[in-house]
Amino acid sequence: MKTILIIGIGAGNPEHITVQAIKALNRTQVFFILDKGYANDDLLALRRDICTRYIEGHDYRLVQVSDPRRDSDSPSYRSGIEHWHEQRAALFEQLISDELKPGQTGAFLVWGDPALYDSTLRILDHVLARGGASFKYDVIPGITSVQALAAAHRIGLNRIGEPVDITTGRQIAAQQGGDIHNSVVMLDAHCTFERFVDQALHIYWGAYLGTADEILISGPLHEVSAQIREARETTRARKGWIMDTYILRRAVS
Amino acid sequence: MKTILIIGIGAGNPEHITVQAIKALNRTQVFFILDKGYANDDLLALRRDICTRYIEGHDYRLVQVSDPRRDSDSPSYRSGIEHWHEQRAALFEQLISDELKPGQTGAFLVWGDPALYDSTLRILDHVLARGGASFKYDVIPGITSVQALAAAHRIGLNRIGEPVDITTGRQIAAQQGGDIHNSVVMLDAHCTFERFVDQALHIYWGAYLGTADEILISGPLHEVSAQIREARETTRARKGWIMDTYILRRAVS
Ligand SMILES: C[S@@+](CC[C@H](N)C(=O)[O-])C[C@H]1O[C@@H](n2cnc3c(N)ncnc32)[C@H](O)[C@@H]1O
Ligand SMILES: C[S@@+](CC[C@H](N)C(=O)[O-])C[C@H]1O[C@@H](n2cnc3c(N)ncnc32)[C@H](O)[C@@H]1O
Repeated sequence: MKTILIIGIGAGNPEHITVQAIKALNRTQVFFILDKGYANDDLLALRRDICTRYIEGHDYRLVQVSDPRRDSDSPSYRSGIEHWHEQRAALFEQLISDELKPGQTGAFLVWGDPALYDSTLRILDHVLARGGASFKYDVIPGITSVQALAAAHRIGLNRIGEPVDITTGRQIAAQQGGDIHNSVVMLDAHCTFERFVDQALHIYWGAYLGTADEILISGPLHEVSAQIREARETTRARKGWIMDTYILRRAVS
Repeated sequence: MKTILIIGIGAGNPEHITVQAIKALNRTQVFFILDKGYANDDLLALRRDICTRYIEGHDYRLVQVSDPRRDSDSPSYRSGIEHWHEQRAALFEQLISDELKPGQTGAFLVWGDPALYDSTLRILDHVLARGGASFKYDVIPGITSVQALAAAHRIGLNRIGEPVDITTGRQIAAQQGGDIHNSVVMLDAHCTFERFVDQALHIYWGAYLGTADEILISGPLHEVSAQIREARETTRARKGWIMDTYILRRAVS
């Protein structure tokens, strides 16, 4: 039997790794690294750094493969994503068959936590459903960018007795006009918060969380919105990529 | 200056602790332990175990205090909670003044992540607002019970492109009759999922996650609902306490 570990490594701060994840790294012979293009060098470097820092005296291999490109011509968002997942399933199946011997352990290092806006688990389910590779797999949670954001701003995610809503830039754009009460927004490439400046909201924003480039800005949305756009554009131009997350919160009256 | 660290320690599995949290434990002279009564012995034991396991050769003290009881006669849920937070703020202020010398570091060990349904941060804000104690403070994120649940069931929290909703038993009880799509439910002492058995939902349930007593049950809600109630009641009677969390999810058609 082959074993696959899906290891959450935290979202930028190498010290956000757990003891469980470190033990998992040290059980792994082959690491599969998906090269996603753009954020390429820095994010790959962070993964390599984690291996070097935490793996003690044993041999391991990194297998780097390019992630199939998502087809943006697809008729719908969902079906586009599903086609892409199918391609990736074929790739994963091949990696597991070709690169791992029976009895060996392979691992995918997942940014943040594998349960949050990450497709690795879904793709492994596809791989198993295809039936071409047989393996057992385990999931190791990791600190998410959402937790890194809340800790850096020293705030809670929920308000007393209320739910927590974690959503995407695309989703809040679609709900334009509607009220926002308390939402964590991820995967927003378009400063969608700007559409809500005339609502009485507070924003807690963070980019490159946990890394040496971490930027934190918070305040009344209408006051800091322009400052955030500027910080976003400047650093993005300089580094070639950005990852940011924010919370929009209405004052409780 | 005194320093207060609010350290997330994970929600039951001692290996869910991060490297950052371990370093924070090793910088701390005084640990404040709030004794909450009921789940008392086991949960205190887990905190002590974490200190013993991860603190290397330095002196530290545990200061154990009883948590003020919440007044359930209060006119509203919110005002009841706020009065309770005020009492706890007075207690924290006193602890920080009496038990820490200038230059020393004190810590609160928080179950899971301090940002998720935990009042420690809110109370420290109250303490600072009262003005009676001066200190700086830092927050160290921890793996939540929600992440432990998702990892144990090897599922994602979000479905493709959709938001994540983390809510409470009280909230989903209030939304009775309404549809549930995909919600993580915490703080439910009453098997509130039973109210939704006639909706076509799947449940992923976990109790004592990460501990030696971990129980996992999943399946179509109407099929496993009775089994979950039974597991819940049996183990709760045996151990004297229970902590459980679950996800209710509608099939995507
Ligand atoms: C595909 S999702 C992956 C989330 C990841 N699984 C997690 O647990 O954080 C990528 C999004 O996460 C957020 N993100 C990830 N790392 C971040 C960081 N270091 N700083 C700010 N946001 C980050 C951004 O919103 C980004 O668009
Ligand atoms: C006051 S909240 C604290 C949550 C914590 N801060 C976290 O990050 O998980 C307590 C609730 O968390 C959930 N919980 C905490 N630990 C758990 C465990 N080991 N297994 C199952 N549920 C747990 C239960 O729903 C419980 O009612």
